[in-house]
Amino acid sequence: MQPPQMMGYDRAITVFSPQGRLYQVEYAREAVKKGTISLGIVYSDGVLLAADKNVSEKLMVPGSIEKIYRVDKHIGAATSGLVADGRRIVDKARVMAQSHRITYEESMAVDSLTKEICDYQQLHTQVAGVRPFGTSMLIGGVDGDARLFETDPSGSYWEYMAAAIGENSDKVRDYFTKHYKQDMSRDQAIELALKGMRSADSSRFNEQNIELAYVEKGGKFDILSQDDCRTYMSKLSISKKKKE
Amino acid sequence: MQPPQMMGYDRAITVFSPQGRLYQVEYAREAVKKGTISLGIVYSDGVLLAADKNVSEKLMVPGSIEKIYRVDKHIGAATSGLVADGRRIVDKARVMAQSHRITYEESMAVDSLTKEICDYQQLHTQVAGVRPFGTSMLIGGVDGDARLFETDPSGSYWEYMAAAIGENSDKVRDYFTKHYKQDMSRDQAIELALKGMRSADSSRFNEQNIELAYVEKGGKFDILSQDDCRTYMSKLSISKKKKE
Amino acid sequence: MQPPQMMGYDRAITVFSPQGRLYQVEYAREAVKKGTISLGIVYSDGVLLAADKNVSEKLMVPGSIEKIYRVDKHIGAATSGLVADGRRIVDKARVMAQSHRITYEESMAVDSLTKEICDYQQLHTQVAGVRPFGTSMLIGGVDGDARLFETDPSGSYWEYMAAAIGENSDKVRDYFTKHYKQDMSRDQAIELALKGMRSADSSRFNEQNIELAYVEKGGKFDILSQDDCRTYMSKLSISKKKKE
Amino acid sequence: MQPPQMMGYDRAITVFSPQGRLYQVEYAREAVKKGTISLGIVYSDGVLLAADKNVSEKLMVPGSIEKIYRVDKHIGAATSGLVADGRRIVDKARVMAQSHRITYEESMAVDSLTKEICDYQQLHTQVAGVRPFGTSMLIGGVDGDARLFETDPSGSYWEYMAAAIGENSDKVRDYFTKHYKQDMSRDQAIELALKGMRSADSSRFNEQNIELAYVEKGGKFDILSQDDCRTYMSKLSISKKKKE
Amino acid sequence: MQPPQMMGYDRAITVFSPQGRLYQVEYAREAVKKGTISLGIVYSDGVLLAADKNVSEKLMVPGSIEKIYRVDKHIGAATSGLVADGRRIVDKARVMAQSHRITYEESMAVDSLTKEICDYQQLHTQVAGVRPFGTSMLIGGVDGDARLFETDPSGSYWEYMAAAIGENSDKVRDYFTKHYKQDMSRDQAIELALKGMRSADSSRFNEQNIELAYVEKGGKFDILSQDDCRTYMSKLSISKKKKE
Amino acid sequence: MQPPQMMGYDRAITVFSPQGRLYQVEYAREAVKKGTISLGIVYSDGVLLAADKNVSEKLMVPGSIEKIYRVDKHIGAATSGLVADGRRIVDKARVMAQSHRITYEESMAVDSLTKEICDYQQLHTQVAGVRPFGTSMLIGGVDGDARLFETDPSGSYWEYMAAAIGENSDKVRDYFTKHYKQDMSRDQAIELALKGMRSADSSRFNEQNIELAYVEKGGKFDILSQDDCRTYMSKLSISKKKKE
Amino acid sequence: MQPPQMMGYDRAITVFSPQGRLYQVEYAREAVKKGTISLGIVYSDGVLLAADKNVSEKLMVPGSIEKIYRVDKHIGAATSGLVADGRRIVDKARVMAQSHRITYEESMAVDSLTKEICDYQQLHTQVAGVRPFGTSMLIGGVDGDARLFETDPSGSYWEYMAAAIGENSDKVRDYFTKHYKQDMSRDQAIELALKGMRSADSSRFNEQNIELAYVEKGGKFDILSQDDCRTYMSKLSISKKKKE
Repeated sequence: MQPPQMMGYDRAITVFSPQGRLYQVEYAREAVKKGTISLGIVYSDGVLLAADKNVSEKLMVPGSIEKIYRVDKHIGAATSGLVADGRRIVDKARVMAQSHRITYEESMAVDSLTKEICDYQQLHTQVAGVRPFGTSMLIGGVDGDARLFETDPSGSYWEYMAAAIGENSDKVRDYFTKHYKQDMSRDQAIELALKGMRSADSSRFNEQNIELAYVEKGGKFDILSQDDCRTYMSKLSISKKKKE
Repeated sequence: MQPPQMMGYDRAITVFSPQGRLYQVEYAREAVKKGTISLGIVYSDGVLLAADKNVSEKLMVPGSIEKIYRVDKHIGAATSGLVADGRRIVDKARVMAQSHRITYEESMAVDSLTKEICDYQQLHTQVAGVRPFGTSMLIGGVDGDARLFETDPSGSYWEYMAAAIGENSDKVRDYFTKHYKQDMSRDQAIELALKGMRSADSSRFNEQNIELAYVEKGGKFDILSQDDCRTYMSKLSISKKKKE
Repeated sequence: MQPPQMMGYDRAITVFSPQGRLYQVEYAREAVKKGTISLGIVYSDGVLLAADKNVSEKLMVPGSIEKIYRVDKHIGAATSGLVADGRRIVDKARVMAQSHRITYEESMAVDSLTKEICDYQQLHTQVAGVRPFGTSMLIGGVDGDARLFETDPSGSYWEYMAAAIGENSDKVRDYFTKHYKQDMSRDQAIELALKGMRSADSSRFNEQNIELAYVEKGGKFDILSQDDCRTYMSKLSISKKKKE
Repeated sequence: MQPPQMMGYDRAITVFSPQGRLYQVEYAREAVKKGTISLGIVYSDGVLLAADKNVSEKLMVPGSIEKIYRVDKHIGAATSGLVADGRRIVDKARVMAQSHRITYEESMAVDSLTKEICDYQQLHTQVAGVRPFGTSMLIGGVDGDARLFETDPSGSYWEYMAAAIGENSDKVRDYFTKHYKQDMSRDQAIELALKGMRSADSSRFNEQNIELAYVEKGGKFDILSQDDCRTYMSKLSISKKKKE
Repeated sequence: MQPPQMMGYDRAITVFSPQGRLYQVEYAREAVKKGTISLGIVYSDGVLLAADKNVSEKLMVPGSIEKIYRVDKHIGAATSGLVADGRRIVDKARVMAQSHRITYEESMAVDSLTKEICDYQQLHTQVAGVRPFGTSMLIGGVDGDARLFETDPSGSYWEYMAAAIGENSDKVRDYFTKHYKQDMSRDQAIELALKGMRSADSSRFNEQNIELAYVEKGGKFDILSQDDCRTYMSKLSISKKKKE
Repeated sequence: MQPPQMMGYDRAITVFSPQGRLYQVEYAREAVKKGTISLGIVYSDGVLLAADKNVSEKLMVPGSIEKIYRVDKHIGAATSGLVADGRRIVDKARVMAQSHRITYEESMAVDSLTKEICDYQQLHTQVAGVRPFGTSMLIGGVDGDARLFETDPSGSYWEYMAAAIGENSDKVRDYFTKHYKQDMSRDQAIELALKGMRSADSSRFNEQNIELAYVEKGGKFDILSQDDCRTYMSKLSISKKKKE
Repeated sequence: MQPPQMMGYDRAITVFSPQGRLYQVEYAREAVKKGTISLGIVYSDGVLLAADKNVSEKLMVPGSIEKIYRVDKHIGAATSGLVADGRRIVDKARVMAQSHRITYEESMAVDSLTKEICDYQQLHTQVAGVRPFGTSMLIGGVDGDARLFETDPSGSYWEYMAAAIGENSDKVRDYFTKHYKQDMSRDQAIELALKGMRSADSSRFNEQNIELAYVEKGGKFDILSQDDCRTYMSKLSISKKKKE
């Protein structure tokens, strides 16, 4: 908490604090940290995205909760933070990708799309009358290479081999730093994803909450069914009880 | 109540609190909680919507109070919260559904309509000069499957098999969690609805306050007359006195 | 009065209080309560509207004070609250009714007009740069049935068999709850109106202050002359002295 | 003076106080009360308007001070309050009257003009970015009947047989209530006007400060010359010394 | 100085104080009072304008300082207050006079121009986003008669036979009240002007600071050269030392 | 520093203080005073402009720092204050001069350009949403006569024979008042400029910091090279050590 | 930290402090100082740009982090400060350079581009509704000569032979002031850059973090690969351990 004499610097987006900080952007990041976890992993043939869907109630229809979105044939995205903000950013990304396809008759490069989305988010940190988006995204896609980007409410982005956003994502990142290997197979990537996710919060970890998707070279884009998830989880001998 | 040094974060929509919260959206949810209860239940052939119409005065004309709206041939909605806000959102939904029908010559999918409405609500949380809508909706419809969505002032939405919004809706949700069954008949659904509603506040429970409607596969959409309600209530042996 | 730490929630329309309340709308209702009384009664053949014109000064020209307005051939309205706000809302209603007539070549239904006016009022509670209207209306009309609606600064509305708005309207409502009967004749309705009004504040009650109008099936719309009012009052043996 | 916890309700037009009051409108009325007096009287053949021109300095050119304006052939107006605000409202009225004449090929009814002016003033109490007009008007005219209206910064208006606005206008109103008679001649009306004005503040009362004008049936509109005023004052034996 | 509880009423133009005052307009008048003196005198054949140019530094070019402006062939103006505000108002006046000439093929009446300028200034006291002009003007012109008007930041104006604005203008006004005579010659007017100006502040009084101009019937408009001023001052035996 | 009860008058441009002052304009003048010195001198054949370029670092490229700008063939300008503000004003001036040339097929008079620039600056003191320019200019040019103007953030301007703006400019002005002579040659003007500048702050005085330019009758406009400056300084026996 | 009575001057861009300072611009400079270091060096044949890419995590893809941008064939730029702000400014610069090329059929001069970018940044310090850019740039290019400019959030710019921006840039500047030599070869420039960067923070110094690029006469523009960087670093015998 900042001392009283600091009050006010954090209540309008268009204002710097004396330390050159934009408090509203930092607070938007807090919204991201409150979101359930999403992660991405680059493997030999593509990118894997995984997310905790947070199915907290028995009567909720799990299949209806989307945390991983298909942006274009070759690009997927997972979000953390304010759900409705994330959905709007994803819609924006879809339109950008379609526009590109129609204008240039080719699919959009993953980094171009990431940059364009981030420019849109940056505007929301500099112009009065709007607030920053309370969402971060993992954008994974294949355009020749498999690429994975993380975006930030400030409009910054970084490319990673494996990354995680949302609550307890630092634990997952630590797990990835220790166990990530180049040129994994898809199955190895899924195993890493599931183990990473379990490392964040094993108490919540179960197959109903997990959403898995991958984009691979050659145009393969799959969001796995709950059955497939379960299969993977059993195949990989990953269960709630067993601690690594 | 937040401490004094927190003051100000909750007085403008476009501002995050240091914890990454949007207070105005949370306060709008309080408006929803103050509204009388609405609920929805998916059963074998369709979706049932029910609402407490809050006919509090003897000279009020009960039939004139709408809490359940017909959005399109195949979609209904029940609202809780600020009545006028809810009415405007429903009008918006009607226009969206009609536009879709005219543009694509087919009826709009229930989830598409829900998403479009929620995007409209999200905008009211990010742009200056407007406040969020103080209303939540249960959107029930049939497009092949029977589907039931709950919306939130933030622009989030979730799909449920049975859900309730408004005052004491947590009691109804508990009741549903315990007693909801797959593949109920319409009569069973109505019984569950009436019993659920009675569980929230039995003192207010009477046939004049209840509004019931259902949407079923094959295009059947009915808002029940007061007589029909009374019939159901007596047929099901549900009365104010008898506690379950 | 709210405590100091509550300050600020009630100074901008687009802001919810932590309890989900819109203070500006509630304060606008206070303006309505300060207005002189208006009332409406549905009887067998139509709707009666009555109002206290508040002719407080000897040199004022009573006939020039309008509290009951003809909105269309078949719809009248009585307002309470800020006089100038009421006048503007009534003008808006007249334009809506005329537009409908021209566009669809039929007269507008009473509930449609009520809804459209209320949507206009709701907008004034959600958008920055304007304040809510400090006025409520009783809209009485005949479109097949005789109907009577009450509107609210929030944009809500309710249908009644008999209703009253403005200062001391709760006393009149109590009187109506006790004495209202279905299928009264016009004379019975006028008697009920005059007695109801006297119950609110017998000290102010005299024929110069009363304005009476009725809309009946078959297109009869009359705003009674002061003479007619006096006739009715004597015929019904209602005088200032005699208490019921 | 309102207590500290009330502060802020009166600093923005678009905001109601917890009591449903619009402070800015009430303060604008204070500006009216600070203006020098204007009055109007309906007599048998027309309407008389009179005003105190406040010629306070010897080198001022009295004839250049206008407090009574010719709005149209058949309508005059006298203002109290902020002089420049009054002048702008009068200009607006002139344009309205001319527009009506051109559009409908007939002169505008006095009450129609009054209503239209008041609607314009009401808007200045509800919309952000402007302040209310700090002026009231007496609008006197002849359209078949002789009519006299008083307008208010809120956009309300009332019809009177005789009225006064501005500083000490309550004394003049009292005088009128006692001495006003139906069907006076023009000379009787002028006598009443002058005596009424003298009753407000006899110390300031002299012929140089008085402006008199009348509108009569048959299209007579005269703003009296200073000589005529002096003649009337001597003819009527009204002098500064003699108290009634 | 207003007490603390008054704070805020004077920080936004569009806001009345509880006493019905517009503080920003009053403060703009303070800016006028801080300006060097300007004065005007009506004489037999025309109007004389005079101003203190405030040539305070030796290397300043006196001829470059304008305080008296030619608005049109027959109208001049002298300003006091914020110099740049005055210049903009004068430019506006020139455009108004030219527009009139082009539209109606005749020169604009002095009072019409004054009124139009004042309407423009009034707008700056009622609309948000601008501040009032910190300038007053003396507008002198000949249109048949010789006329002299004083304008005010509120948009009010008055006609005078002789007037002064700016610092110490009350002393000059007193001098004028004592010594002004009808039907003076131009030389007498200049003598009165110079003596009046000397009465305000004899220490500053010298020929380099004085600017003189006159407008006369028959289209004569002259801004006197410094030599002419010196000639007049010696001819009239007015010197710095000699006190009247 | 103003006392607490004065707070707020200086935080918005469009607001007068109770003393009729515009604090924001006064603070902008402080920005001017913080800028390095610029000066101008009128001599027999033209106008000389000189400026301290403030080359504070060894690796800075001195030639790249502009403090004297060519506005048009016959007009130059030197600024003090916020560098970027000055540059924008100069660009504006260039466009104005070019527009004039194209529209009227003649070069713009120096005073016309000055006035137009100052009107632009005045607008930035009266309209909300912008701040005043934190810059003053010396505009020197030849249009028949050699003329030198100083502008101010308020939009005021004055003509001088010799003037200085920026830090310590009062010392230079004193020096000029003592030593300025009519009809100097260019060399004499340069000597006066260099000695004047040295009088302000001899410690900083060296040839690398000085920029010199002159505009002369007959269309000569030269910004002197650093070599020329050095030549002048040695020719005139002006060195850092020697004090006058 | 400023004392309490100073509060408020630094919370809106369009406001000067009493000392003529624009706090928001100064705070934006703090954001620049927080950014990792960027530097530029002019050598015999061109300009070298270098930057610390801050690759802080093992799984980050270093090649994806851009701190040096190609603006046009002959112009590069390195930024420090808010990454997303810098990216937007660079995009703006690219469009400006392309527009110039298309309009004038020649490449844009380096100083023209710098000036145009800085005008854009200045606007963000004077107009309400936006904040200043939290970024500085080093713009290096070749247009006949090799030139290097540093920009500032205020919209100021300076030309240097060697410059550095960002965290600890003062240390690098000191190093450059001591060791910069005219007419270095490219290799010498790279050595100076690497040693300068190491002098700022030797603990972070390694080849993965360094990005190097040069623009040379004759159209050569290269952003060096990581291998090239490593080669240079070993060739130049610069290692983390060895301190100079």
